[in-house]
Parts: sequence; C-alpha cells; structure tokens
Amino acid sequence: MAATANASSLTSWNEGAVKSQILDFVARVTRQGGPDFVPPAARIAVFDNDGTLWCEQPMQVQVFFLMTRVQALAEKDATVKERQPFKALLELDLKTLMGLGKQALLELVFTTHSGMKEEEFDLIAREWLAKSKHPRFGRLFKQCTFQPQLELLNFLRQNGFKTYIVSGGGIDFMRACAEEIYGIPREQVIGSSHKLRFEINGDRAGLMKLAELNSFDDREAKPQNIALHVGRRPILAFGNSDGDLPMLRYTKTGEGPRLALLLHHDDAEREGAYDREFRLSPLNEGLEKADAYGITVVSMKRDWNVIFSKPS
Amino acid sequence: MAATANASSLTSWNEGAVKSQILDFVARVTRQGGPDFVPPAARIAVFDNDGTLWCEQPMQVQVFFLMTRVQALAEKDATVKERQPFKALLELDLKTLMGLGKQALLELVFTTHSGMKEEEFDLIAREWLAKSKHPRFGRLFKQCTFQPQLELLNFLRQNGFKTYIVSGGGIDFMRACAEEIYGIPREQVIGSSHKLRFEINGDRAGLMKLAELNSFDDREAKPQNIALHVGRRPILAFGNSDGDLPMLRYTKTGEGPRLALLLHHDDAEREGAYDREFRLSPLNEGLEKADAYGITVVSMKRDWNVIFSKPS
Repeated sequence: MAATANASSLTSWNEGAVKSQILDFVARVTRQGGPDFVPPAARIAVFDNDGTLWCEQPMQVQVFFLMTRVQALAEKDATVKERQPFKALLELDLKTLMGLGKQALLELVFTTHSGMKEEEFDLIAREWLAKSKHPRFGRLFKQCTFQPQLELLNFLRQNGFKTYIVSGGGIDFMRACAEEIYGIPREQVIGSSHKLRFEINGDRAGLMKLAELNSFDDREAKPQNIALHVGRRPILAFGNSDGDLPMLRYTKTGEGPRLALLLHHDDAEREGAYDREFRLSPLNEGLEKADAYGITVVSMKRDWNVIFSKPS
Repeated sequence: MAATANASSLTSWNEGAVKSQILDFVARVTRQGGPDFVPPAARIAVFDNDGTLWCEQPMQVQVFFLMTRVQALAEKDATVKERQPFKALLELDLKTLMGLGKQALLELVFTTHSGMKEEEFDLIAREWLAKSKHPRFGRLFKQCTFQPQLELLNFLRQNGFKTYIVSGGGIDFMRACAEEIYGIPREQVIGSSHKLRFEINGDRAGLMKLAELNSFDDREAKPQNIALHVGRRPILAFGNSDGDLPMLRYTKTGEGPRLALLLHHDDAEREGAYDREFRLSPLNEGLEKADAYGITVVSMKRDWNVIFSKPS
C-alpha cells in the first residue's frame, strides 16, 4: 500500500515495463503478510555511483578532481609532467589515460590523495565540489546527478529501504558529497580505500591516508565489501557496467524477491551513448547476458523523461 | 531536554560522578542551539563487546563457541587433539590457551570458521547461541550481557545516537546476535574478519569464508576500521582494555564535546576482578593514563547496581 501511495514520486520515469517492475517489486516486499514481504531491516539497496547515480563522461567526476590535485603536485615538482599517468591527465589525453585502465587511475588517486589526515582530505574535496563545474554540461559536478535516480533513492527510503553506494570511486571522495546530493550518509558509502595509519601527534590522535591500496572496490570486491560493511545480501542492486555484475548477481541469486538493474547509456543527445567501447568501464557481458542473469536493462532514452537533477 | 526526560531509564547506574558525566554529556550534545550541540548524523557511539557489553571470563563467549567447532573438527580428524592451540582448548587448559595470545585465538577462529558460505556460518552461530549456557553464570550466553550497558545503548539511541560495536571478536559471530541482544543491526557491527571469495555455483552466487585474515580488529585497527566502515570520528567510545585505547583516544581527541569510558572489572563477587593480569586483554596503560588521556574509568562495583541483564 505504501508503495502504491507514493509511486507518483517517480515522475521522471516513463510509464512502461521497467517502471512497472520497480513499483511491483517495492509493493511486494513491503506488503505486510504477503508472500514476498521483507522486514525493513533486510531492505538493503545498493547503487553503483559513476554512470549509475551521476554522469561519468568524458571522465569520471573524481578524475576531474584528480587533475586539480596533479596540477598542484606539478607546481611543486616539474618532473611530474613527464611521467605517466600524470602526463596524460595533465594533457587531457583521454585516449591514453583510459587506455591505462582503472588500476592506473586508482594509482593516480593514491599518489595524490595520500600523506594527509582524513579530515584534511575531506575539506579539500568539499571545497572542490562546492565550486567546480562539468566542462560539457556547464553545471556543478554535484548537479550532474540523475534526477530519476534521486527519485528512486527517495522512493526506496520512503518504503523502508536503507540505500547504499557501492562504487569503485574513492570512499572518502564520495563521502564528501553523498549526504548532500543523494541523502546517503557517510557510513552507507562503500568504495575504494587507502590503508590508514593511526598516529598520535602531541595530544591529538588521527588517521593518515597512506599511498597504499586497501581495497579496489570493483567486480568481485563489490559483493565482498558489501558482506564486510553491511553483512546482509541486498535485495535490490543497480549498476551500469560489467564491473557491477558480481554485485548484481550476488543480489539477484539470494532467496526471496530480488531486483537487479543495469542502466544502459543509450541517449547520445541528452547524455551519452556508450557501452562496449568505454574502456574504463565497459558494459558488454551485462548486455549479452542480462536475460540469462535475470537482470533488467534500463534504457536512459526510453525509460527516463528527464536526465539531470534540477539545480537547487 | 530529551536527555533529561529519559535519564530515568539508566536505573542500573548508581548516582555519582560517572552517571552525572554521561547525562551531562548527552544533554549538552543534544541541546539544540547550545555551544556543544552535535547534529544527529554525527552522534556516533562505539562500544567494544567482550568485557564491555557482555562478560569475557573465564573465556570470551566466542571461545566457548570455538570449542564446539573444534570438537566437531576433532571427530573428523583425531590429530587435531594433539596440536596447539586445539589441544589446549579441548583440554580446557586456559593458562596455556591464554598464553598463546589473541592472535592464536584468531587463528583458531579462522581454521574452524572457514570453508563455508557466510549464510551457513550464520546458521551455525545462531543455533549455538540459541541454546548454549555459560558454565559459571548458568544462563544463556546471550543473557550474559550487562544490564547497565543495555540501558545506556537505549538511552543513546533515544537521544539520536547511532550505536556501533567495534570489537576484536569475529564480525560474523557478533552479527548473528547483536540485533537480538543489543538492538544493534548487522551493518553497525565492526569486528575481525576473514577474507571472502566470490563464487558462482550453478546459478547461485555467494561468498566463501576463507581461512585467511582480512582484519584483526584490535588496537590501532579499531580506529582504522571505524574510518573505513563509518567514515566519522565517534563522539563517544566505551571499552575495557588497553586494546581499546587507540579507539578511545581517537574519539576523545576530536574537535568538540567527546566522552571516552573504560569499564574496570573490580567486582569479584558479582562478576570478576581483573585488569593487569588478564593476558588475553589486559587493562594496564588504561588505568595508569586515564587521567592524562581524559578517559573516565567506570567501576563495576561502585557504578552499577545490577550487572547482568534480566533473562527475557
């Protein structure tokens, strides 16, 4: 009943099979006494971030942030400009940069985001996010979120779900904005992480971000980290690339009602049309096997009547 | 105001300096518009488990559980009885066992708790917890929780706090009972963890617990894991051993109002009197430096008028 009552909040979703499936799923799991009822504590929904909740083209938001960090680094040490992957980033040579792969990008992150306390990093990220704009869309990166997804997150929470981000992006970077832009608190953000060193300087204890990987939260690491952080198998998962498939299949193959969704970026006019060719985060197996895996493919073009959130 | 209104719920706490300090702290951080106000999202409280929320003598609850797992192992493989630390455990040779240290105990855990899916382990732990009794106190282990702490957890939650367990105990073992006995949901339990392997068997994806340590959640690992799981510095921390000091100091030395507490087991008659001599989890530096670190020592004998929870 609750689900039906506020289904009208999904106004940016076009009527059709996908929207119906979402509404039907939420109605079933919230129907007290029904055969598919799931108690609120077990209503865990997990969302990838880049390309699922906000845009990731031509580069992921955090890569733009990275660039400002690398520029700051290059001002102190001129040799940085001659070394990869720094060189490609500073020259905006996206082809080379993307060709270096996700792991190289993560290494960039760990080189430029370390050697500072967690609180210092949080401040730097917040300041950048407060003023930086997307070069193509001309709006703040913080406003490059997808309106239909904001509505879906709210709709799920209204129906007793706990919403999580599970992303390959840096956990601290996402935590600097997730509460403000998605209503997702810091403790419900799971991502790639540094190792930390506990330090006591004078009277003050703190944690130093080290230039060392703790977890690269992609592919198999996504369900592993969900188990570590949440300790429950989600009942709903939403991704947009093959890197999300382990999380989607982990979600989908649990007992009881489950919903797994993949966003297909097929709208060149309003946002972008890409899948198999996007080297950094391709969608290939996901499209081939969606039916076999019981995954619902969401078409940006067909299913969404609005793409971006309204600037507030 | 809210804090004052339901302060009467801390009935198992004796009037005195410690109780006053707790009430005063909660009143200050919840007083809207006051100089020490903390918004609800930042009201994170972390509790150690063994010896802080429930008893840990003569052995930690999970060690009793371990014993049944080792017995099951020994039935299949007779050589187990001849090897340490299995031998000491099966012979209830506590002196030898404790002498082997925490790391050996953790290895015991990882040997006996692995090679199964997370859901299988959860079932085994739940079944054991449902029926197993503490040999000395004659009550279910699940009822060896401390009544004053249950009241404190509730009191904090009534005042907008999010309560977490941060323990050296196994994360999956604690998650099998934390919701039922403490009202703490699985995702708010942080503990020692195995590495997990993502597997797809037939149509079903799942996570296999491996005999390999992911994190031993003691000492410096406690603040590190708080940063990973929660992403916020707590404002209240409660422990009972030197292994909790990094977490307590991390909590206490943040900006703004903070409260760090150490439970001293000084009540031989009702529960146990131990500190420096308890090899597995000594309280030594904590007693020496409590004043210097700004940590409040709670005396079980002086501050609690009831120890154990009432069997429900």
